[in-house]
Amino acid sequence: MQPRRHFQFEVKLDLSGERFRVIYGMQGSGEEVRVRAEDICVEQTIEFPRDLVTSGDIRAAIVGKIERMERPGGNEWEIEISFAVETVGHELTQLLNVMFGNFSLKPGVQVKRLDLPVSMLKDYKGPRFGIQGIREMTGVHDRPFLCTALKPMGLPNDTLAELAYTFAYSGVDMVKDDHGLADQPFSPFWERVEKVGAAVNRANKITGNRCLYFPNVTGPLSLIMEKVRWAKACGVGGLMVAPGLVGFDTMKMLADDDGLDLPIISHPSFLGSYVVTPGNGISHYLIFGQLPRLAGADATIYPNYGGRFSFSLENCQSIVQGATVEMGHLHPIFSAPGGGMNLERIPEMVQAYGKDVIFLIGGALHKMGPDLVVNCQAYMDCLRECVISR
Amino acid sequence: MQPRRHFQFEVKLDLSGERFRVIYGMQGSGEEVRVRAEDICVEQTIEFPRDLVTSGDIRAAIVGKIERMERPGGNEWEIEISFAVETVGHELTQLLNVMFGNFSLKPGVQVKRLDLPVSMLKDYKGPRFGIQGIREMTGVHDRPFLCTALKPMGLPNDTLAELAYTFAYSGVDMVKDDHGLADQPFSPFWERVEKVGAAVNRANKITGNRCLYFPNVTGPLSLIMEKVRWAKACGVGGLMVAPGLVGFDTMKMLADDDGLDLPIISHPSFLGSYVVTPGNGISHYLIFGQLPRLAGADATIYPNYGGRFSFSLENCQSIVQGATVEMGHLHPIFSAPGGGMNLERIPEMVQAYGKDVIFLIGGALHKMGPDLVVNCQAYMDCLRECVISR
Repeated sequence: MQPRRHFQFEVKLDLSGERFRVIYGMQGSGEEVRVRAEDICVEQTIEFPRDLVTSGDIRAAIVGKIERMERPGGNEWEIEISFAVETVGHELTQLLNVMFGNFSLKPGVQVKRLDLPVSMLKDYKGPRFGIQGIREMTGVHDRPFLCTALKPMGLPNDTLAELAYTFAYSGVDMVKDDHGLADQPFSPFWERVEKVGAAVNRANKITGNRCLYFPNVTGPLSLIMEKVRWAKACGVGGLMVAPGLVGFDTMKMLADDDGLDLPIISHPSFLGSYVVTPGNGISHYLIFGQLPRLAGADATIYPNYGGRFSFSLENCQSIVQGATVEMGHLHPIFSAPGGGMNLERIPEMVQAYGKDVIFLIGGALHKMGPDLVVNCQAYMDCLRECVISR
Repeated sequence: MQPRRHFQFEVKLDLSGERFRVIYGMQGSGEEVRVRAEDICVEQTIEFPRDLVTSGDIRAAIVGKIERMERPGGNEWEIEISFAVETVGHELTQLLNVMFGNFSLKPGVQVKRLDLPVSMLKDYKGPRFGIQGIREMTGVHDRPFLCTALKPMGLPNDTLAELAYTFAYSGVDMVKDDHGLADQPFSPFWERVEKVGAAVNRANKITGNRCLYFPNVTGPLSLIMEKVRWAKACGVGGLMVAPGLVGFDTMKMLADDDGLDLPIISHPSFLGSYVVTPGNGISHYLIFGQLPRLAGADATIYPNYGGRFSFSLENCQSIVQGATVEMGHLHPIFSAPGGGMNLERIPEMVQAYGKDVIFLIGGALHKMGPDLVVNCQAYMDCLRECVISR
C-alpha cells in the first residue's frame, strides 16, 4: 500500500465548547509576555508549528487561547489561557500535562491557579471527608487539631507503638508516621502499622477520644494496594501519601477507593522544587492547595512560616486559600503547617490560621520537658484556651 | 495501661554498614555550607532535633554523614553525604525521599549524582533492553536512530495511523505518540493504539525494517496495566511513560513486568522545575540520566540544546553521561534529544552525541517540503551518511 504523502487538510472536530482556564504568572514587557503566552498555547497542546496546521478546527479549538493579560503590579503579569476540556480527556495526569508538562522545562513561568468548569470537576470525587468530615469523625468541632509524628527514624516498632500510645493517651488528635518511615528492617511496615494502630485504638478506649493514626503508605506502587488494605484492616484512622513521590494520580486512586473510605493526608516531600524559585514552577496555592484537593486529599501538609523552611506567611495563607476556595462539589480541606512551632507561637498561629487547621508539632513536643504526657497536655490545653480567648 | 513518659534511651541497631552516597552542590562560605550539609544529614533522615536523640546507634548510623566537602571552583561546593542503605528499605520512592524529599523545600541546594553500592543496585532490574537491546531488536547497529511523533493533537485515529504508516514506510526507526495524546474523544487511546500499531506493522512487512511504535501510556493509574497489556496485544514496539506525571516508581513497575517485556522511553513532562533554576533542584545528569535508568527506562527524552528550550550543550552532555555511566549491572541507555533540529544540524548533532542517540524530529520533518516520504528519506539518508563520513 502506497503511503499518503501530504497531511495538510481540514479536520472536523465535534467538541463541547467547554474550556478550562490556567492562570500563569510571568515577568517582562507586554510584547515579551505575549510571545511567551502564545508559546504556551501551542507547546502545551499541538506542540507543532502553528503555521503547518491547516485545520481551522485544530487551530481554533485545540490550541490554547489567551483570554486575559493583566499587569497587577510592576513588571508582573497574570495571563489566563483557556484550553478545550477535551484536550484532557478526563485524566488528572493529562490535566497536569496540558497545564505545565513541557513548559515546566522553560524558566520564567509560574502556574498560579486552575479554574475548572463544573463539567470537568465531575471527573473528580475530590476529598472524601474534608474539614467537615474529619470533624465528624473525631467529634472535635471547635478548635484546631494537634498532629504529631513518630520519630526519629531508627526506633523499633515496639517503641514507636509505645510512643503513639503516649500521644493518643495524652489527648493528641492525630499521629502520623514520619514520612521517612517506609519499610525499613528496623521498623518493618506491616508489623509497625499493626502495632501502632492497635496502640492508638487501645488509648482511644481509655480516653474516649478518637485519635487518628495515619501510616505513610507512599510506595512502592507494586505493593501500595496491599499496604492500604492492611492498614485498613489494622484499624488505622487514615493514610499519609506523598504525591511528589508517587504522583497525584496515585493519591486520587486511593481517595477514590470506596472500599478504603479513609481520610488522606498529603505530604509535600519532593515537591519543593516547584515552589522554591519565585516566578518559576507552580504556586504554593496550586501545588499544596488545589492539586492535593483535586486528587482527594483531606489535609495538606506544608512547612510553616517562621520555621526551618523558607515559606512566608503569604505563601502559607495562599495554601489555605487553595485548600478552601470554592471548587464546585469539592470539599474544603485542612491545612497542616509543620515545623518551627512551639507553645509560645500557638496563639499567633491560631490568629493566622483560625480553627480549621492541623498543627504539626514534632520535635518541639519532645523538647519542652522530660515528661511527654505533660508536654502533650500543655499543648492541648493551649489549643483549647486560644480558641476560647480568641 | 499507663503510658511511658520518657523516650530517651539507647536503641541497638543491627545494620550492614553499607552506605550509599548522594552528591549535593551548594554555594557559600565553608561554614555556611557545612551548616547546610549537617542540616541535610538530619532533615533527610531522623527529621528530629539531633540533641534529643540519645541513641548512639541512631546518631551514628541513621543520621547522614558528610564524607567529603570540596570546592571544585569559585564559590561552588560539592558535598558528598552517605546514608545507611537500610534507611531506604529497598524502595525507589524512599530513595528519592532520603535523597531530596524534605530538602527540595529549601532553596540553594542541588542534588548532583547518586552513587549506589552493588548491594543496593540489586534492588533494581534496570533497563530491560538498553542501547544494546534496542539495537538487537531493530537490527540497526551502526548509526543514530530517528524517532518522530504523531502530531498535532486533534487528528483522528485514522489519520494518525496513516501518518504512522507513512513514517514507517519511509524508513523512520521509531514513532511515538505525542505525549499529549492521552485518551481524548477525538483520538481515543484503545482504538488509536490498535490502528497505529497495525499500520506500523503493515509498513514493516513491506520495508523489512522493524520500526517501533511507542504509545504514550502515562496515566491514569487505575487503567495503566490495562493500557499496557492492550498495547502489548496490539503489537507495539515499546511504551512511552512520563515519570514526572505518574512517578518514577510507576515506570519501574512497567519495566519490571516480565509479561510486558517492552522497551520504555521516558518523557520529561512536568520534570522541568527540578532543573530550570541553576544551583537548585536536581541535576540534568540525575533526573534525566541516572533516575530514568534506575527506574528501567531504555531511552530518555530531553530538550536538545539550541532548540526551543533552554538546555545547554553541557546540560545535554551530562544527561548522556548519566545515561551511560557505569552503574553495576544496569545497561547504558539511549539519550533522545528533541526540539530545534533540522537537516542542516544533523552532522553537528552526530558530532556532539555520537551514534548511540535517538534524534527526535517532529515539526522539522513536516516543514522541509510538501512530501513527507521524501522528507523522511532525506533525514534517514543524512543519518547514514553522517556516520560514514565521520
